[in-house]
Amino acid sequence: MNTLLLTGFEPFLNFSINPTEEIVKELNNQEVGGFQIIGAVLPVDFSTAGNEFIKLFHTYNPSAVISLGLAGGRLKITPERIAINCNDGAADNKGNKYAGAKIDPEGPDGLFTTLPIQKIVNELNNHKFPAEISNSAGTYLCNNVMYQMLNELNKINKQIPSGFIHIPASHEMAVIDQKLPSWSQTDLTNAIKLAIEVIDLND
Amino acid sequence: MNTLLLTGFEPFLNFSINPTEEIVKELNNQEVGGFQIIGAVLPVDFSTAGNEFIKLFHTYNPSAVISLGLAGGRLKITPERIAINCNDGAADNKGNKYAGAKIDPEGPDGLFTTLPIQKIVNELNNHKFPAEISNSAGTYLCNNVMYQMLNELNKINKQIPSGFIHIPASHEMAVIDQKLPSWSQTDLTNAIKLAIEVIDLND
Amino acid sequence: MNTLLLTGFEPFLNFSINPTEEIVKELNNQEVGGFQIIGAVLPVDFSTAGNEFIKLFHTYNPSAVISLGLAGGRLKITPERIAINCNDGAADNKGNKYAGAKIDPEGPDGLFTTLPIQKIVNELNNHKFPAEISNSAGTYLCNNVMYQMLNELNKINKQIPSGFIHIPASHEMAVIDQKLPSWSQTDLTNAIKLAIEVIDLND
Amino acid sequence: MNTLLLTGFEPFLNFSINPTEEIVKELNNQEVGGFQIIGAVLPVDFSTAGNEFIKLFHTYNPSAVISLGLAGGRLKITPERIAINCNDGAADNKGNKYAGAKIDPEGPDGLFTTLPIQKIVNELNNHKFPAEISNSAGTYLCNNVMYQMLNELNKINKQIPSGFIHIPASHEMAVIDQKLPSWSQTDLTNAIKLAIEVIDLND
Repeated sequence: MNTLLLTGFEPFLNFSINPTEEIVKELNNQEVGGFQIIGAVLPVDFSTAGNEFIKLFHTYNPSAVISLGLAGGRLKITPERIAINCNDGAADNKGNKYAGAKIDPEGPDGLFTTLPIQKIVNELNNHKFPAEISNSAGTYLCNNVMYQMLNELNKINKQIPSGFIHIPASHEMAVIDQKLPSWSQTDLTNAIKLAIEVIDLND
Repeated sequence: MNTLLLTGFEPFLNFSINPTEEIVKELNNQEVGGFQIIGAVLPVDFSTAGNEFIKLFHTYNPSAVISLGLAGGRLKITPERIAINCNDGAADNKGNKYAGAKIDPEGPDGLFTTLPIQKIVNELNNHKFPAEISNSAGTYLCNNVMYQMLNELNKINKQIPSGFIHIPASHEMAVIDQKLPSWSQTDLTNAIKLAIEVIDLND
Repeated sequence: MNTLLLTGFEPFLNFSINPTEEIVKELNNQEVGGFQIIGAVLPVDFSTAGNEFIKLFHTYNPSAVISLGLAGGRLKITPERIAINCNDGAADNKGNKYAGAKIDPEGPDGLFTTLPIQKIVNELNNHKFPAEISNSAGTYLCNNVMYQMLNELNKINKQIPSGFIHIPASHEMAVIDQKLPSWSQTDLTNAIKLAIEVIDLND
Repeated sequence: MNTLLLTGFEPFLNFSINPTEEIVKELNNQEVGGFQIIGAVLPVDFSTAGNEFIKLFHTYNPSAVISLGLAGGRLKITPERIAINCNDGAADNKGNKYAGAKIDPEGPDGLFTTLPIQKIVNELNNHKFPAEISNSAGTYLCNNVMYQMLNELNKINKQIPSGFIHIPASHEMAVIDQKLPSWSQTDLTNAIKLAIEVIDLND
């Protein structure tokens, strides 16, 4: 069976949980949309996240790659259109902090996703899950791993669906942090399952 | 068995659905928290909503009253602290429009809810549903029916739990309107069931 | 000349400035709209703010009273419609913290402002300053002093314009706190001058 | 004297004004930061805006290029980090509408600005104007003209500062549209003057 590498992130900032970790752990080893899911949780660490991710890719040689990240404040499931060659933002869990540094000094400024993002959005909306394409994955770890995978696939000239999907906070997080829009963990997981089911390797 | 009058509203503005109507229809005739639920859908009409509501009250003589309303844009389940003696805002479904008119020319400026709002918020948060007390039910139909019921209970000197709970938009609405934070209908209904279960007539 | 008592608050939370303090200090002793302005800065302290405020009132016996407060997150100048008999929210600058306590155990639940709030909103909008009526002054110090003054005026049966206006954060604050909508201090001060000019003691 | 081509856009959607047009008209022919400003207003038209913009560039051969656009809903002055090779979003003023089409079928996915965006942000913050780098100029006309100019400069191998700055709505717009954060036109214009003054051709 075809495999799909599905990554989430460990908790960061003030939270003891990360809803992407929950999704990845729940779907790991399950069959979704004809794919055997290989779930993995990446560290919130600029110095290791990308390397671990690419190593996982070469270990499993999956037919598709989707990374998940939390976007606290977003209202919808948002597949990302582009990754950019830039590290910036708050310090990561190891204290690494960048201000506009290039991820790959030789890499292109931006790299479009190869996921069928409009199809994913349509499918989710058809199932009454609010979704829309996002034009920025930020400049933190989410963008970093998205860029590194797309850049690697370009370098090895491999054409498979690969990209990133940001999700809203979970209700559990919103109970702690007073201003976050949130969905139930069940909704978040079900929405990601729908997104995976849309991917057709014959497209 | 004790009864609880639970009201929602019909759809308004651009929407063909109202998640409060869904909740009320689903819970009607069910037993929740020791109450037999009497569900009713009120019109978005300043001239008739309050009268219909008070008539329902006198018909069923319930032991508690909770009205539900949609608060498009809110992130959480928000029990209301106070109703105010004021009609204002957009035109209702019949075209009635007010600019700061009193609901009851002889009534007090404000009337506190008699629901255990802090207990409701705590219970919801304990079950990982984001909730907080709201200090304004607005000046539209939601505030209007909340005020009219509390005012009526004062006039007839009846002391029962009565008040209003605003809920976020449903995912279904957010798919249509691009900027609304939303919860699944299932989450909305389950949260209201928890709120009802908190009500203890011996408090 | 008629006098107008204009109060602001001292800084609170993480900020070293409060734009209401700036306005009050700038307008103190000036003539605005036919009023001699008596500017005063109130402490963010539940135990003393109201007493100080009422003492100032009896000392100066002004013809009108306007209190100003910062509403971080609001987009517009928002005259408040009602004060409610409730202390709640975060701890004040002295560490006092309340959870739904009444301000005056014998007082009414709510008290409408006696300022011409719709006229103020219209005047500001006509001068291209975004403004709208707010239906909640919260349950913190702002609501507290608004309630205490309206309650006192009722008790002594004095009918003068009295109320509260919330203002957005200043640009200076937004530079420090990343998520605050803001106006320049100049705009904030000019908008409040317009609001004062609207007050007509013959209305 | 060195020249700087400064563009804004004509009004669009429901508004009869566009604050970028006001800025461009006010600064046209003025000297700012050692530059003679060449102000120009671009049409909200995918089929002509880029061509007009590039034509203006070749006509005046400026030493720097800054385009301005309105970002309704943003709180701050936001210099854009990257333009992407994508047209999407609502119909333009001529009815043209795209869904993910490439601007230049042969162009790179993304192109970084050549403006000193961090320096601009720092300068504005130092002068108490809220500002931050944005990682997405969207996929509408703003991104389109930013991409087209950076792409043209690459093609002709010309290295000058070029990029895009989004600004908040003006108070005048917020009076009409109820939910927009806004600044006064004076603040908007002064902030853009500061941004221009930062540009140093010797950097």
